[in-house]
Amino acid sequence: MNAYSVGVDLGGTNLRVASYVPGKGLQRSISLPTRLGAGRDAVVDDMCGAIRQLMLENSLHHSLAGIGIGTPGPLELPEGRLHGPPNLPGWDGFNLREAVEDRLESAVMIESDANLAALAEARLGSGRTLGVDSLCMLTLGTGIGNGIILEGRIWQGNNGMAGEAGHLTIWADGEACGCGGAGCMEMYASATAVVRMAKQAAAEGAPGLAALDNITARDLASLAEAGDRTAQAIFHKAGRAIGIGLAGLVNTLNLPLYVVGGGLANAWPLFSPQLFAEVEYRSYVYRLTGPMGRTVRKTHILPAELGPEAGILGACILPLTEGSSQMTTSPSLL
Amino acid sequence: MNAYSVGVDLGGTNLRVASYVPGKGLQRSISLPTRLGAGRDAVVDDMCGAIRQLMLENSLHHSLAGIGIGTPGPLELPEGRLHGPPNLPGWDGFNLREAVEDRLESAVMIESDANLAALAEARLGSGRTLGVDSLCMLTLGTGIGNGIILEGRIWQGNNGMAGEAGHLTIWADGEACGCGGAGCMEMYASATAVVRMAKQAAAEGAPGLAALDNITARDLASLAEAGDRTAQAIFHKAGRAIGIGLAGLVNTLNLPLYVVGGGLANAWPLFSPQLFAEVEYRSYVYRLTGPMGRTVRKTHILPAELGPEAGILGACILPLTEGSSQMTTSPSLL
Repeated sequence: MNAYSVGVDLGGTNLRVASYVPGKGLQRSISLPTRLGAGRDAVVDDMCGAIRQLMLENSLHHSLAGIGIGTPGPLELPEGRLHGPPNLPGWDGFNLREAVEDRLESAVMIESDANLAALAEARLGSGRTLGVDSLCMLTLGTGIGNGIILEGRIWQGNNGMAGEAGHLTIWADGEACGCGGAGCMEMYASATAVVRMAKQAAAEGAPGLAALDNITARDLASLAEAGDRTAQAIFHKAGRAIGIGLAGLVNTLNLPLYVVGGGLANAWPLFSPQLFAEVEYRSYVYRLTGPMGRTVRKTHILPAELGPEAGILGACILPLTEGSSQMTTSPSLL
Repeated sequence: MNAYSVGVDLGGTNLRVASYVPGKGLQRSISLPTRLGAGRDAVVDDMCGAIRQLMLENSLHHSLAGIGIGTPGPLELPEGRLHGPPNLPGWDGFNLREAVEDRLESAVMIESDANLAALAEARLGSGRTLGVDSLCMLTLGTGIGNGIILEGRIWQGNNGMAGEAGHLTIWADGEACGCGGAGCMEMYASATAVVRMAKQAAAEGAPGLAALDNITARDLASLAEAGDRTAQAIFHKAGRAIGIGLAGLVNTLNLPLYVVGGGLANAWPLFSPQLFAEVEYRSYVYRLTGPMGRTVRKTHILPAELGPEAGILGACILPLTEGSSQMTTSPSLL
């Protein structure tokens, strides 16, 4: 029998459960709203119901290799406990792993969503294309997610909380951030941040922007593409912020690949010149190792190859990935 | 026969070569001036002469486990080639590994000095005390060195150039740095930086400082301890800079231990309150995982246990460390 896995992408708005066959990709997919209002038990019931449905559908012809679950963080690993996740209000202290394993009566692997997007990008996206097994991915969405893959494995850190580079300080005395700090990369280069900057500019009377009521990051990108200087300046600022942060990551980690994904990464041509200017300026490691550098092996900074499915793909391949060592109850499942 | 190793600490001013016996520590040590003016071949001759002398002295009673060499960077690994090292003028493009191996007719292991200090601190210092095998060390000296140990091994990165967190951007529009960027941690928290800040303050008429001609970082610490407000403010600024940088490292790497070493770390009481204030403010990972946090495993930020011998100790234990895989010519040496 062919092996398959089941992956879960739990978001604050949508819950997606999918089956995956190695070499064939995603198979069946079930999408549900995340019923946060009904309580966390209801959400976990929905999730486990969908997982069981996919297991039932596959039970005749495939053997289950494992179940991978991606969740917004902060997530403590290997425990599987959430600590005040901003996108799952009311889930503070909840042991998501236990709740799922109790219902399914089998072990699952759990990870933060940004780590799984990075794992997918490493195994199925730009990491595979370049033939490298280490990368750092920034996912520009509502916030800025971050995942770090070292030698093929997710770098979880001591508590599962590695990969919060979205909260690197960029401008130390800058905008207050939801994390409690100020001047974080997330405050300048997330979709939320560019919209905030557009509203600030509109309030200050920027002509092109003042006409738009509920401006989105996509609207802003269209305006910038059409030549609006204020919109362009906002993307330039986002590019500078990402570049300052990436320069720090290049200097610290010296990985072969840094990937920028998430919805805002579609605006790559609008912000990448400023991004590269800052990285070149602030990282002599990049100047030595980048495409124009002198070293044997090169440092690449690229937009992500995988789109919005990176998260669910990462959840599906997590149980199929060598070197994962999270299974706490029944390792025989793998 | 007991095993021994030979370690080299190559600095811009001094060259130290020592023998080391596991469990017994440093044995014989040879210290020489680094004769930069005589050219790099002369320096490598001096180094290899001292290595041979220690090998000869040990040959009857001990078996050589390997030779470890620490050098100022940037150093490309596994090649062993230097790229414009600021502390070794004239050595740009020099393959130090080849030069040494040609002379000794045997393989050596080579690493940047800051990485070796971190390795020693992990294996023989605070890492051993706490029982953790991953740490990030900042060495506050002429510049700021940085080494990252992950699961007991030096994280070299793709080109051997990981661990340049001294060049994290702290204040993006700040002081121009020798690295070509601006506002780097090194420009606010190295010994050189606090002296520069003191001279700036003296030039602006700060009363306690203006009297001192050639002020050193140690003088400045004494003044701060004696109550000089200007000197205290300089250490507070250094603490803020390290704290902003460490917050980024905690958020990105989530290691169990961050260590601050180097000469300036002796002033720990003068700058650590500001350091911790910034880390608490800017890192929710630290707030969750620090000594007062909720997680099972804790994040520690400590002054280094090992003093100025960390570099030579790291060079000595490098060949004795599992998981090192740098030997390119004769692995049988180990």
